[in-house]
Amino acid sequence: MKHDHILLGHGSGGQLTHELIDSLFVKYFKNDILDNQTDSALLTLNGGQIAFTTDSFVVDPIFFPGGDIGKLAVAGTVNDLAVSGAKPLWLSAGFIIEEGLPFSELEKVVKSMTGEAKKAGVTIVTGDTKVVDRGKCDKVFINTSGIGLLDPRFRDIVSGKNITVGDKIIINGSIGDHGMTIMSKRKDLNISSEIRSDCASLNGMIAKVLEVCPEIKFMRDATRGGISTVLTEIVSDKPYGVEIDETAVPVHENVRGICEMLGFDPFYVANEGKVVIVAPAGEAEKIVEVLKITEEGKEAAIIGEITSAHPGKGWITTGIGGRRVLDMLAGEQLPRIC
Amino acid sequence: MKHDHILLGHGSGGQLTHELIDSLFVKYFKNDILDNQTDSALLTLNGGQIAFTTDSFVVDPIFFPGGDIGKLAVAGTVNDLAVSGAKPLWLSAGFIIEEGLPFSELEKVVKSMTGEAKKAGVTIVTGDTKVVDRGKCDKVFINTSGIGLLDPRFRDIVSGKNITVGDKIIINGSIGDHGMTIMSKRKDLNISSEIRSDCASLNGMIAKVLEVCPEIKFMRDATRGGISTVLTEIVSDKPYGVEIDETAVPVHENVRGICEMLGFDPFYVANEGKVVIVAPAGEAEKIVEVLKITEEGKEAAIIGEITSAHPGKGWITTGIGGRRVLDMLAGEQLPRIC
Repeated sequence: MKHDHILLGHGSGGQLTHELIDSLFVKYFKNDILDNQTDSALLTLNGGQIAFTTDSFVVDPIFFPGGDIGKLAVAGTVNDLAVSGAKPLWLSAGFIIEEGLPFSELEKVVKSMTGEAKKAGVTIVTGDTKVVDRGKCDKVFINTSGIGLLDPRFRDIVSGKNITVGDKIIINGSIGDHGMTIMSKRKDLNISSEIRSDCASLNGMIAKVLEVCPEIKFMRDATRGGISTVLTEIVSDKPYGVEIDETAVPVHENVRGICEMLGFDPFYVANEGKVVIVAPAGEAEKIVEVLKITEEGKEAAIIGEITSAHPGKGWITTGIGGRRVLDMLAGEQLPRIC
Repeated sequence: MKHDHILLGHGSGGQLTHELIDSLFVKYFKNDILDNQTDSALLTLNGGQIAFTTDSFVVDPIFFPGGDIGKLAVAGTVNDLAVSGAKPLWLSAGFIIEEGLPFSELEKVVKSMTGEAKKAGVTIVTGDTKVVDRGKCDKVFINTSGIGLLDPRFRDIVSGKNITVGDKIIINGSIGDHGMTIMSKRKDLNISSEIRSDCASLNGMIAKVLEVCPEIKFMRDATRGGISTVLTEIVSDKPYGVEIDETAVPVHENVRGICEMLGFDPFYVANEGKVVIVAPAGEAEKIVEVLKITEEGKEAAIIGEITSAHPGKGWITTGIGGRRVLDMLAGEQLPRIC
């Protein structure tokens, strides 16, 4: 570790998080399953395969346009299972609550979890409640862990081992909405057109896509660190690179506006309802068509491709003909975004 | 809910926790599996059964004689699976870390988790790391969720549906050690004989007992709320009661001393390595013998029995011939005990 103390950046999902994971969790917990560093662990049980994942949510504020910490906690874990090619079935819910939290706020969060679980078709089957003294946490933190059933046809999606040069990169819609919603809510920015988090469970949409195109090579939800971090992870240490066409990447006007105003690059801003899909070139148009008939994918687009040109690196061609390199998020842009 | 705001007592594991669970989580999350309110959810998958459980750990201080938050996080979830009759296999680990925590402390915790996981024979297969700003959590909180494989012979243990009048109550050793260790560490009490937490993974010991006596009716680890809360839960709304012989319940002298000094009743003090077992009368002696040859069960004892005398209630016969009623912990004795 380069640092003696934990920094906010160690929770960014970017470079420092990777450093912490490598120098601590991978080093000590060392085992074949964890070493894969995938969104979900794939486990063999009773002759079949399951996916198992965990996520803690500490978002501040706990309520925001388009969602709240409860919806986020359900959708986030559902998505981690779904992008691994698994059908999400069961969730756990672990609450750490600050003494003094109004019951009505907790109730609103729990109701929201119930609604999102119903929408996603998952059941919350087990839970835990801890209360800590005032000032020792911030309102409420929620951990959701999840179990999904994996169709053997999709078992290589989580590793992306079948990615090859020429594969297309697809995204199911605009980037940066979640991060900039939290940012504007936190800074109490007076924005004329309301900006909303894209927080959503994507398992229904992903199931439709996998039905039409079981040959999908890889999926990952672009949360902390944004799509730039995901794209960098895809090509890191690989014999291929990725080339992105900036003009093809959907960004809502209001998100672009706030990003420019505050100096953020939407490529590094967190999403909570966006998945980066890598698929065979011949299937890409069909996938976008299927995505477009879903609510969560109606702004889907092909945004780039896997290339042999710069192994291990990602590049963006900008609108004005320039080029810039993609990288993992360095430092911390927006603490407690999820 | 009787209260407008969350109180520390809502995390006690006792009456207020039950009230919160009933008026919120059971009400909204409502489903057949959660309604059972068992230590683990039993789920059918690929034709077999698994147990799934979650627990968040917020213990203060994070290091204490006999353990630390990492050991506790592994052992606690291992035990929730084991008392459900399942063989613990896989754990997740979700960290919420306070900005500024020395890396060396986090490393010590992670090393401890590694050691305990190895000892318990489980693998940490997936994880998550969040960092919150200084003062918004307290050093580190850990959630562990776990999956275990359930032998169909043991599927009724978690519900205790086969408990009948005459069954014996067994405990694997002394009570109150964990709670009083945390208490004396927190208050910096100057105790002559060192007191140590009983924090331990019990799955090895439990497996030995189940091998010898697969007819065990029920098991539950007596954590928050102590053995009194567990015993009350066993008989609550049931056509039978429980009778405990206080003189048969092992309590270490130093624990008894601190309890008397500070006004605690060891029956309500948290344990982290104790399981209450309900077993057919004819098997009880054999179970104690098996327990006694294990490290975690060497002070095992039969402490009472299921009775028809006072349905739904638990009573303790005290050493001096008196009697007192057992109840769930009311209020909060020791916040952040686990």
